[in-house]
Amino acid sequence: MRAAVMRGDRFAVETRPDPTPGPGEVVVKVKACGICGSDLHYFHHAPDIIAMAAKLGAPTEEMHRTLDAGPILGHEFVCEVVDFGPDTVRTIARGARVCSVPFVLKNGAPVLIGSNPETPGAYAEYMTLTEALLVPVAEDTPTEAAALTEPVGIAVHAVNKAKLAPGETAIIVGCGPIGLAVIAVLKARGVRAIIASDLSPKRRELADAMGATTVVDPRAESVIAAAAAVVPGAPAVIFENTGARGMLNQLVLEAPQNARILVTGIPPGEESFIPMLAITKEIAMQFVIYYTPEEFAEALHLIQSEAVNWRPLITGTVGLSGVTRAFKDLEDPERHAKILIDPALA
Amino acid sequence: MRAAVMRGDRFAVETRPDPTPGPGEVVVKVKACGICGSDLHYFHHAPDIIAMAAKLGAPTEEMHRTLDAGPILGHEFVCEVVDFGPDTVRTIARGARVCSVPFVLKNGAPVLIGSNPETPGAYAEYMTLTEALLVPVAEDTPTEAAALTEPVGIAVHAVNKAKLAPGETAIIVGCGPIGLAVIAVLKARGVRAIIASDLSPKRRELADAMGATTVVDPRAESVIAAAAAVVPGAPAVIFENTGARGMLNQLVLEAPQNARILVTGIPPGEESFIPMLAITKEIAMQFVIYYTPEEFAEALHLIQSEAVNWRPLITGTVGLSGVTRAFKDLEDPERHAKILIDPALA
Repeated sequence: MRAAVMRGDRFAVETRPDPTPGPGEVVVKVKACGICGSDLHYFHHAPDIIAMAAKLGAPTEEMHRTLDAGPILGHEFVCEVVDFGPDTVRTIARGARVCSVPFVLKNGAPVLIGSNPETPGAYAEYMTLTEALLVPVAEDTPTEAAALTEPVGIAVHAVNKAKLAPGETAIIVGCGPIGLAVIAVLKARGVRAIIASDLSPKRRELADAMGATTVVDPRAESVIAAAAAVVPGAPAVIFENTGARGMLNQLVLEAPQNARILVTGIPPGEESFIPMLAITKEIAMQFVIYYTPEEFAEALHLIQSEAVNWRPLITGTVGLSGVTRAFKDLEDPERHAKILIDPALA
Repeated sequence: MRAAVMRGDRFAVETRPDPTPGPGEVVVKVKACGICGSDLHYFHHAPDIIAMAAKLGAPTEEMHRTLDAGPILGHEFVCEVVDFGPDTVRTIARGARVCSVPFVLKNGAPVLIGSNPETPGAYAEYMTLTEALLVPVAEDTPTEAAALTEPVGIAVHAVNKAKLAPGETAIIVGCGPIGLAVIAVLKARGVRAIIASDLSPKRRELADAMGATTVVDPRAESVIAAAAAVVPGAPAVIFENTGARGMLNQLVLEAPQNARILVTGIPPGEESFIPMLAITKEIAMQFVIYYTPEEFAEALHLIQSEAVNWRPLITGTVGLSGVTRAFKDLEDPERHAKILIDPALA
């Protein structure tokens, strides 16, 4: 099979052996796979990430082994079942389209897809998945829509963790794919005041399309001040999705009393802030990254029912040979939000 | 009347005019007033606090005016009603003992006691309070017990914000008066695993007396590791009460997955931590300082019903002329937890 393998500063299309399914596993044909911000982060900073892990005392052997072998990334996938291993129940038929949380079960324990050379990701024609974790995609759902299940799942989880009460204002700082998905989920949940900000005019346009009720340019005005003007005195729930250096400090400085800050953006290294301010305002910070299997399934349901307007999120599709170029293009927020990889293309 | 007035690096007993009650106000005789950690912080760092407020763009006129006039601190008080102003309903009789949240209402707006020269605190023989905010103390409750209502109120608030579920482990980092009060409230709420740590042997003894189920010396072992040994795999709720530099970073480093960190300790200046770690572990940080009037009343109820073992908390009582010495003594955790001021003493 063909796979886009990360080799230093580019992705090489290489031929790898077709996967064979182990017990409880299925082989799937990748129909589409989104390029995630964390893939970009890994592409640009893999040695730094491993160094940080080592500094924190985490085991890094598998990380080194994966990087040396040539990583096959890709965890936002929709696939078609093509083969079954032993000990499979086959409730989901051959030919059916499926999603899955990005884990496979090895001796009953979840292993993150892409975390070692034996569990490669979906930047490839085929991969193996654990049958018990498959979530079927409805027949009338476009493949590209289902490929957004994973990032929308993160948004569902962040919104769940935020526990918005009626009348609370949602503030979205940074409208990359996660920020945009958060906006869509908030809209689907009936939140009335969704105030979003992004430096990019294109991203502000997308925020509007996804359901933001007010969109601001942070160079022209503070999004927190803008939110206070929309619903004066309303408690604020702030979703920080930029991962920009100093943003957390800035938000603690500007946030109103009792603000809750949901942090999905990962800044590199250390960040500082003023605890005295956070305490005086009784600020809460909730850091989020995952989702539960239920939240993953809810994300697919929101997409299938069109409760989430997924179309504006997808701004491009490439084949395996286009991955290097797509990673470059994604650096420009004026051009793209989410690019999908379709291995059937050249 | 006599008052202990903060003058630079000491408290001078000065004579001030007896207060007269305005509309809706009562004059009270101070029976006891606790020395709070925030009083110590202000005593040692008042100019820095004002400089920080100025740097953050906050108005500092009243702060300067208060410091220049000679601050009368004291917001953990129990008093006796001695006189009524106009427009008072007098449901609480002259001679009754009362507590109050440390605010007075001026034209309907709450003004923090001690925040300007016109609303002095309880390091004095008399003060004025707002009648509508008084909470009566039961007849059989010792005065010194009722004086702990304010710090116990902070603990009630912190524990409420923590929203502990059955089976969750509480970890208390730092057993000063707030940490000790948190232990007592957790015990009153029936929390089974209360693991506390403090550098001071005396404070560890007090933690045990207040209801901690395991007490550790952080120089000998990590309190988080100790908690994990007590209830393996239990979600952890960590109360950080030290305000020590670098502690937040350390807790993010050591905390288990999904830990919630309740921050009551205020470190000076900026603090840094590694967001990537906080995100990977989905950590929540809740900064706390206040309480609601309901939580204040609940604190008094917990004390009156002896659900909170308040006795070990009080380690000394001084008169107004002993305040300077008490502030010095409180620097040594081996000697004291809470010192009360009784203006009737010399």
